Amino acid sequence: MPYVNIKITNEGATAEQKATLIEGVTKLLQETLNKNPATTVVVIEEVPTDNWGMGGKTVTEWRKTQK
Amino acid sequence: MPYVNIKITNEGATAEQKATLIEGVTKLLQETLNKNPATTVVVIEEVPTDNWGMGGKTVTEWRKTQK
Amino acid sequence: MPYVNIKITNEGATAEQKATLIEGVTKLLQETLNKNPATTVVVIEEVPTDNWGMGGKTVTEWRKTQK
Amino acid sequence: MPYVNIKITNEGATAEQKATLIEGVTKLLQETLNKNPATTVVVIEEVPTDNWGMGGKTVTEWRKTQK
Amino acid sequence: MPYVNIKITNEGATAEQKATLIEGVTKLLQETLNKNPATTVVVIEEVPTDNWGMGGKTVTEWRKTQK
Amino acid sequence: MPYVNIKITNEGATAEQKATLIEGVTKLLQETLNKNPATTVVVIEEVPTDNWGMGGKTVTEWRKTQK
Repeated sequence: MPYVNIKITNEGATAEQKATLIEGVTKLLQETLNKNPATTVVVIEEVPTDNWGMGGKTVTEWRKTQK
Repeated sequence: MPYVNIKITNEGATAEQKATLIEGVTKLLQETLNKNPATTVVVIEEVPTDNWGMGGKTVTEWRKTQK
Repeated sequence: MPYVNIKITNEGATAEQKATLIEGVTKLLQETLNKNPATTVVVIEEVPTDNWGMGGKTVTEWRKTQK
Repeated sequence: MPYVNIKITNEGATAEQKATLIEGVTKLLQETLNKNPATTVVVIEEVPTDNWGMGGKTVTEWRKTQK
Repeated sequence: MPYVNIKITNEGATAEQKATLIEGVTKLLQETLNKNPATTVVVIEEVPTDNWGMGGKTVTEWRKTQK
Repeated sequence: MPYVNIKITNEGATAEQKATLIEGVTKLLQETLNKNPATTVVVIEEVPTDNWGMGGKTVTEWRKTQK
């Protein structure tokens, strides 16, 4: 009965991609640790790029330097 | 001084229901563990049904099978 | 299918108290928001007092000032 | 490689303030614990005042009593 | 630069199994959402069965009913 | 009334360092966002290096490659 929380920046993940992610993580926990998929919970959170920092800068700032 | 995080799917919880939940959890921690209600923090997060998975499927998909 | 995370300081909560807390939160979510108790997950985390801060001081320090 | 999650009520923090917060926390972890800023991740979450409780009441209710 | 938090009950996952889980989740995020594996962070938390509840009962209690 | 969760690997942070971290984050939130330090909560979690992954490998493995 694992609980998985996935945080990503909100940059356009589709419903299909999120469904694939949920299915894949659930299967991975079953294969690796024999966890029951029926009770595996996965929650995806999409975070604005202004609110995500790495290396002391926001992702909004990182995206600008990549252009 | 407990901290409680409640994640639910965003399917129309009202401000009144959320206030009842916050009051109830705070009281429960006082009664069960003698925690000071004044410093008990409760944060409710409402998650889109596309972003919540159980049994390897999104809640969006579960809702369809229930109709 | 809510997910609840409760963080408290590790100051001797018993298995019975934790079971009471889990039962109570699950019931509260059923009564308030009509959530299915069978799929409600509650995770309690007990945190050392050196690792919990409030008002800029650790709980270890707060406990000293209360004696 | 620390991970920091900051939850605040969504009451108008600007992109500049959030960038300052991310930069400051990253620097603090470097100075205090010698953590590598390049791999320090900070995620800020802004929570509606209806969803944040303290002392058994929502922040929405607290804000009313302060007027 | 996703952040993944996996909570499981502490029932003997080995270092090898945890390494497999970390590698698998990182790969899944790359394949599904094109996320950079170099900056993908995964944190596994192992929770005592007394502290994990489902269906209003602790996992400790569930394990007894399964014997 | 912010809530801050800091996750680091458990590699020997002292009680003094953790107290400094708590004080510093609380002050930073006051200076940057005018948050009341009295109700700012900070929780530090120390995670075994086997349970922390980056770039698809555990920190235990990373530490070996650095020697």
